[in-house]
Amino acid sequence: MKKGIHHHQIGDSIELYLLIKNVKKGTASNGKPFLTLQMSDKTGEIDAKLWSVSPEDEATFVSSVIVHVQGEIQDFRGMRQLKIKAIRPTSGMDQVRHGDFLPSAPLSPEEMLERVTQYIFEMSNPKLQRITRHLFKKHQDKFLQSPAATKNHHEYVAGLAYHVVSMLDLAKAMVNLYPSLDQDLLYAGVILHDLGKVRELSGPLVSEYTTEGKLLGHITLMVNEIEEAAKELEIEGEEVLVLQHLVLSHHGKGEWGSPKAPLIKEAEILHMIDNIDAKMNMMDRALERVMPGEFSERIFPMDNRSFYKPTFHAPPIEY
Amino acid sequence: MKKGIHHHQIGDSIELYLLIKNVKKGTASNGKPFLTLQMSDKTGEIDAKLWSVSPEDEATFVSSVIVHVQGEIQDFRGMRQLKIKAIRPTSGMDQVRHGDFLPSAPLSPEEMLERVTQYIFEMSNPKLQRITRHLFKKHQDKFLQSPAATKNHHEYVAGLAYHVVSMLDLAKAMVNLYPSLDQDLLYAGVILHDLGKVRELSGPLVSEYTTEGKLLGHITLMVNEIEEAAKELEIEGEEVLVLQHLVLSHHGKGEWGSPKAPLIKEAEILHMIDNIDAKMNMMDRALERVMPGEFSERIFPMDNRSFYKPTFHAPPIEY
Amino acid sequence: MKKGIHHHQIGDSIELYLLIKNVKKGTASNGKPFLTLQMSDKTGEIDAKLWSVSPEDEATFVSSVIVHVQGEIQDFRGMRQLKIKAIRPTSGMDQVRHGDFLPSAPLSPEEMLERVTQYIFEMSNPKLQRITRHLFKKHQDKFLQSPAATKNHHEYVAGLAYHVVSMLDLAKAMVNLYPSLDQDLLYAGVILHDLGKVRELSGPLVSEYTTEGKLLGHITLMVNEIEEAAKELEIEGEEVLVLQHLVLSHHGKGEWGSPKAPLIKEAEILHMIDNIDAKMNMMDRALERVMPGEFSERIFPMDNRSFYKPTFHAPPIEY
Amino acid sequence: MKKGIHHHQIGDSIELYLLIKNVKKGTASNGKPFLTLQMSDKTGEIDAKLWSVSPEDEATFVSSVIVHVQGEIQDFRGMRQLKIKAIRPTSGMDQVRHGDFLPSAPLSPEEMLERVTQYIFEMSNPKLQRITRHLFKKHQDKFLQSPAATKNHHEYVAGLAYHVVSMLDLAKAMVNLYPSLDQDLLYAGVILHDLGKVRELSGPLVSEYTTEGKLLGHITLMVNEIEEAAKELEIEGEEVLVLQHLVLSHHGKGEWGSPKAPLIKEAEILHMIDNIDAKMNMMDRALERVMPGEFSERIFPMDNRSFYKPTFHAPPIEY
Amino acid sequence: MKKGIHHHQIGDSIELYLLIKNVKKGTASNGKPFLTLQMSDKTGEIDAKLWSVSPEDEATFVSSVIVHVQGEIQDFRGMRQLKIKAIRPTSGMDQVRHGDFLPSAPLSPEEMLERVTQYIFEMSNPKLQRITRHLFKKHQDKFLQSPAATKNHHEYVAGLAYHVVSMLDLAKAMVNLYPSLDQDLLYAGVILHDLGKVRELSGPLVSEYTTEGKLLGHITLMVNEIEEAAKELEIEGEEVLVLQHLVLSHHGKGEWGSPKAPLIKEAEILHMIDNIDAKMNMMDRALERVMPGEFSERIFPMDNRSFYKPTFHAPPIEY
Amino acid sequence: MKKGIHHHQIGDSIELYLLIKNVKKGTASNGKPFLTLQMSDKTGEIDAKLWSVSPEDEATFVSSVIVHVQGEIQDFRGMRQLKIKAIRPTSGMDQVRHGDFLPSAPLSPEEMLERVTQYIFEMSNPKLQRITRHLFKKHQDKFLQSPAATKNHHEYVAGLAYHVVSMLDLAKAMVNLYPSLDQDLLYAGVILHDLGKVRELSGPLVSEYTTEGKLLGHITLMVNEIEEAAKELEIEGEEVLVLQHLVLSHHGKGEWGSPKAPLIKEAEILHMIDNIDAKMNMMDRALERVMPGEFSERIFPMDNRSFYKPTFHAPPIEY
Repeated sequence: MKKGIHHHQIGDSIELYLLIKNVKKGTASNGKPFLTLQMSDKTGEIDAKLWSVSPEDEATFVSSVIVHVQGEIQDFRGMRQLKIKAIRPTSGMDQVRHGDFLPSAPLSPEEMLERVTQYIFEMSNPKLQRITRHLFKKHQDKFLQSPAATKNHHEYVAGLAYHVVSMLDLAKAMVNLYPSLDQDLLYAGVILHDLGKVRELSGPLVSEYTTEGKLLGHITLMVNEIEEAAKELEIEGEEVLVLQHLVLSHHGKGEWGSPKAPLIKEAEILHMIDNIDAKMNMMDRALERVMPGEFSERIFPMDNRSFYKPTFHAPPIEY
Repeated sequence: MKKGIHHHQIGDSIELYLLIKNVKKGTASNGKPFLTLQMSDKTGEIDAKLWSVSPEDEATFVSSVIVHVQGEIQDFRGMRQLKIKAIRPTSGMDQVRHGDFLPSAPLSPEEMLERVTQYIFEMSNPKLQRITRHLFKKHQDKFLQSPAATKNHHEYVAGLAYHVVSMLDLAKAMVNLYPSLDQDLLYAGVILHDLGKVRELSGPLVSEYTTEGKLLGHITLMVNEIEEAAKELEIEGEEVLVLQHLVLSHHGKGEWGSPKAPLIKEAEILHMIDNIDAKMNMMDRALERVMPGEFSERIFPMDNRSFYKPTFHAPPIEY
Repeated sequence: MKKGIHHHQIGDSIELYLLIKNVKKGTASNGKPFLTLQMSDKTGEIDAKLWSVSPEDEATFVSSVIVHVQGEIQDFRGMRQLKIKAIRPTSGMDQVRHGDFLPSAPLSPEEMLERVTQYIFEMSNPKLQRITRHLFKKHQDKFLQSPAATKNHHEYVAGLAYHVVSMLDLAKAMVNLYPSLDQDLLYAGVILHDLGKVRELSGPLVSEYTTEGKLLGHITLMVNEIEEAAKELEIEGEEVLVLQHLVLSHHGKGEWGSPKAPLIKEAEILHMIDNIDAKMNMMDRALERVMPGEFSERIFPMDNRSFYKPTFHAPPIEY
Repeated sequence: MKKGIHHHQIGDSIELYLLIKNVKKGTASNGKPFLTLQMSDKTGEIDAKLWSVSPEDEATFVSSVIVHVQGEIQDFRGMRQLKIKAIRPTSGMDQVRHGDFLPSAPLSPEEMLERVTQYIFEMSNPKLQRITRHLFKKHQDKFLQSPAATKNHHEYVAGLAYHVVSMLDLAKAMVNLYPSLDQDLLYAGVILHDLGKVRELSGPLVSEYTTEGKLLGHITLMVNEIEEAAKELEIEGEEVLVLQHLVLSHHGKGEWGSPKAPLIKEAEILHMIDNIDAKMNMMDRALERVMPGEFSERIFPMDNRSFYKPTFHAPPIEY
Repeated sequence: MKKGIHHHQIGDSIELYLLIKNVKKGTASNGKPFLTLQMSDKTGEIDAKLWSVSPEDEATFVSSVIVHVQGEIQDFRGMRQLKIKAIRPTSGMDQVRHGDFLPSAPLSPEEMLERVTQYIFEMSNPKLQRITRHLFKKHQDKFLQSPAATKNHHEYVAGLAYHVVSMLDLAKAMVNLYPSLDQDLLYAGVILHDLGKVRELSGPLVSEYTTEGKLLGHITLMVNEIEEAAKELEIEGEEVLVLQHLVLSHHGKGEWGSPKAPLIKEAEILHMIDNIDAKMNMMDRALERVMPGEFSERIFPMDNRSFYKPTFHAPPIEY
Repeated sequence: MKKGIHHHQIGDSIELYLLIKNVKKGTASNGKPFLTLQMSDKTGEIDAKLWSVSPEDEATFVSSVIVHVQGEIQDFRGMRQLKIKAIRPTSGMDQVRHGDFLPSAPLSPEEMLERVTQYIFEMSNPKLQRITRHLFKKHQDKFLQSPAATKNHHEYVAGLAYHVVSMLDLAKAMVNLYPSLDQDLLYAGVILHDLGKVRELSGPLVSEYTTEGKLLGHITLMVNEIEEAAKELEIEGEEVLVLQHLVLSHHGKGEWGSPKAPLIKEAEILHMIDNIDAKMNMMDRALERVMPGEFSERIFPMDNRSFYKPTFHAPPIEY
């Protein structure tokens, strides 16, 4: 199989199919319009300028179109940029599909669905189990498509599901090591904590914040839904309140979007597990692009740090 | 009428009825048990020690009991303290009632009810009006009794109602000065913003945080209730979302308990009006106790500042 | 009447008179000099590039010149930019005046002067009244021209006067609602609080900081002037000190430029009124440019927030 | 077996052996000297006052003495305090040993030694393994006795060893879940990260900071030792530098005592594992003392939060 | 000569003359009034309780009275406290004077006056020289008595003068090392920077903040005076403005009380010199009380640090 | 002698030899590659664009090459930029040497070596003296070449040595003014505090951080070396620990890279002397480029302040 865009280095000539994810129009210093195309395949992304475009070009090269491109990878202020030599939109003849260009989770939707279902099945507190199952089923389809965030970590198709499955595995390990933890509460918290993102974000391909996402946020949206679910399922008892607290507090503190800090042990652990899985994902992605002995690019949400890959660690697989 | 406890100074001998608000037991350095009584009447509070108490004393002098006390006001580390010379519980003979000892709002419950009702009546957006009326009626009784906070500002019977009425008057003045403001939205926000406190706090006399108050807080509780109210009243439209945002954001930012900062003009103004009325209340109470040319005691939630009463301002009425 | 620059959208062809507010020279990537013109009329501002300029162009298109322009409004990184097709300086023939191009306060200077004078007239404390009148008269002419700030809020001709008049109206409403406030002190504080800006800023058209503005600032300059005014008017008494404190503390705390936090009730209220009026102005201006259902551009001094205009609010008048 | 001090409640009369951990002398308000005794057994601690002490009492009741006490548990400002009715030092007749009164790790020193040794054995990078083994052996005896901190978490005999063993188990689980992690580096980091505490703290029973602990701290002390160990073992290569970085950065950032933030993936994970294990320990200890439906006492190093034990969780075993 | 109070240790019996600096009345747990006396001589301070006082005692033992005391130095929560055995007020017979009990600067007022005068004489810029001389002469008497602060550093009679003389010496050394510095400006800044304290603080013996000290502060007071002095002396030119800036900015930034940060090189250096001399004074005083190998008591304004005296440094002279 | 690049202003035509310090490649908006050359001589730096470069150009104009350039100085966004008219690499014929183009310290290496040696000679504590001499000799050659930082202050050849010599002179002045200071400890601290930079930074010409510089930093590297030096020289005693503490704490606090704040008087003074000398250097360099009455460019590490040169100060020498 052909190498993806991520595997090419500065100086390479390339000829590839790429998906246009985003287009911005500008005016060059010679006064002519140009387009900045943000393009990607499953392996990564690259930007390119399309100079002196005609109105037809503007109508052709729009978001979601798959194009065939020839060009050369250059350096632009320390970032890779594609210098386009030839570009055309694809047709049925090219036999390419959108699904081939979107990065996605390492597990299939079916597998992830099965694993979450299995975790719900293992819960023994019927109140927590029923609320969790109810809300999970309600949003299951979008859950299996949604990214976990618009950027930073797990920002790909089904990224949210993959993030949750990883966290469930980590939760299971924690429960084994620290038996005082309430397994059911922790599993329920993991499954529901970010489920409000299916309403906060607009969708899998072009993720943007919805109005209710901006004005209330995924945390408040899901706390509301737990309330309603309990009403609908006629469930009473402190489990409802406690589960709402877990979702409410999972960002850890006020500055990070949680109006209440975790005040229950499993809430604190949920916050930490969430953190670990997000950071592992960010560090892995940054480090898999650099050779041993090099520093990665900066990771903004991790205090803008650049991570070092020791010389005694393995190089990336593709090289 | 007799002077209240607030109007006595260090050195005064007093003979008064007082309500016991809180009792703590301790052991004196001679090994004997003593009680610290926190007592109040409508004008203020004072602490007193009851030394070498018997088990009967402990059973007699408990929270909510009205007592008749003789003693002298002394200075204890810069605070007034009552040195008890004689103390006895009251009986029917004394003809005293709890209501006489609780500080309360300057307006009667009936008057405050009428004024809030009038403001609701003036609203012209039917969706905002119906949700506001529905939730206000639901919690009306507790609303007319609840303090606005456990301490700091408006912490007396019906303090919440008085705070809301003052804010409504201020909102009306603001709408007149800045006609671009949406009057209905601002009124609705003012009436509902702290209504969740009837669930967050335990009640008018001994205000403590409830478990749901600690785990979710009055903001989240009311956002949930707006959602339900809209369902129940079959109201749809952005008004529901926007009103939830006003309640959600009225603390201004994450560190202060709002998971979203105000993103709507009326939400920002609601936050500022809330602030002004709370601060006016705190400053007025601190300054009415000092003479011109003096500094007040420190006000903790206002950066622990001590305020100055200029010499050309009037002395407190009671002196 | 013709639509102003603010009322045109991306894609519009325009033909307008505009005032050049600022010019920067640069070198294009082809090595040729170009000018970046910041132009405005009463309704708003727009930037434009003038490519490949000759030395004559550079001498012609300078700050304060009124030009006639033809062009098209384009998008440049999310901001509107004017693509110039033709541009010429105006002459007497064009019958245009500077005053027509500067945004200014909604009230006439005469009206604002009368209103401030009326407020001073209403003061009953003769010491505060005399100092306020003396300093107001001294700087009256510049006061009626000065912007309230170089950017952010009320940054137009007579913006300072309009800001002060609005604050006085708000102060009056506050005094009515909270009768414990000292009306005279509050009015005096409002009128003098920013009066030092007539020395801190260079003037109405091209507002920059003066050297004494940078080294001392408008707060210290006015505190000095109150001292001198009291000397000159032979006024003694705590009013002088208290009024200096109001001006000194009106930014609220050290980080914001006030060496003393407000320690007098009216000083705290002055700070809050100042805040409200500035924020109302910023939010109104940002929101009047967007349609219902949209978010405004970010407002930097309000924590860089972008405000939402609910769908049930009215669209801007011009559309 | 008899209940320990921790299992008694306010109001209980007790008769117990206790170890004096700390003694402070004071003067009562009647002018007589008294002692404040901090006493403990394996289950917990309690304070007591010994009034009107003679010089002989002062010489008898000193730190490290085991005493036999009769008394009653009382409430003192929300804390339990022991009112002493009778107290005497113990002799050989009492058949009590210091070891019976010191709280200690749930695992025996032998078991912990074996488990750390096993983890070292599992390492496959010989450089990391040799340095780790060398330093571990060097400090092994003190390591098996030292607390993990003077207060807050694992502050008991062998608390450091138990903390490290728990972290190793957690590290192993993490390596299984995230195979990109370098197991050897993580294990080495866990074993060495706090080993400098054997020099920073004075010893197991009365832990205080040493002068080198205060002036350099355990982090710098261990980084120095890794350098020396590598020299002594004639080990070269980046492993030495990277291992020093792990120890150096394990507090996460400058404010928390690490001059470098983690810049290697395993360093970041080491920091997070350390955090989790310390917090689990603090929360477990706080919660095991409260009944379901109650809030724990505040945990200072966790932002002074008080944690809630849900009503559907089990009560403490002892009740 | 007899040893001062500072030179006695816990356990010592003492018989001394002491000055009462401050008295607080309290009520003991047996219900009787007692006095807390803060007493001092030139070498230091000590607190004592006077139990069960009569009204005559309260009238006798007041602030500024010199007493003869017998007693024993005891430990109270880590602080030395004097247990009084006998105490009486002094009369003419005792031949003691207030001046003997106040700590004061190491140099005589005459010497300090001469040295400041000499520095003013060395200035060659006549404008700076005349303003400095004018203001120095105006406040010279109080300047030679005032402490530099109410606590923390140089808080003794003439502490301000000693602080200024030390800073002038340091300024001279700096000017020699960095010849680009403007000597005159720096000298003027040093002499005037804290001169406003003669108005901010009430006096040498019982230093408290005056009302104008609290509402405006010594910085603003002196900036005002420089303005007036220039008017009176008919001095114009940027020197006036620049000198005001030096005084205004000498606390370094807003949080520390300077509305403008230093924007002139000499202003920055003035701020640093001020800092160094204050810190040297605080560290010296803390360290001269401890033996080599010990840590000093904590110094609150230096981040509450406790400083170490290395074992190879000399012990305090008195031991 | 010819004027250097620093002495030319916008609009000047120049013909000069310059050293290429850094080269970045980019792609112009016309799609052609261009180079951004960062060039310097002893007096300063300037950037230039080289448009439409050929592969030969790219191979010719690389870092460390000395070129002969003709061009014009233009303004680019407020910065000077060189518009190249002709450029060629130099050959032996041009008789230019690298040393002529690198800014360097005002003192010769020999002189600085002699002065540091003299200060070491003056030390009387043999332990401190031997460790200092040993480490200084070990790194002496690099020390005399290294910059003190990659940017901000003393970032030129031998900048580190010049910074240390200035600090030693300042230390000597301090010791004279405050005789309680330990001269030897302070000298040793000054000489060693930044010596680890010879390992942290890559070298004099193109200073970058080394891997050990990034992962451990110059502070930890030197603390390690002091440990080793003491071992090697068989020196024992608290001097070793105390000297390590001085180096460890010289950045003042955690956020600034010191895991321990200064806890010894000389450590605090070392931190302050370091600060003063760095700031004097930054302010002098910024101010020597502006005329009296102007503000300098912003100095980022000094809170981004812009400093004012008073009108009564002298203009730069070159004008």
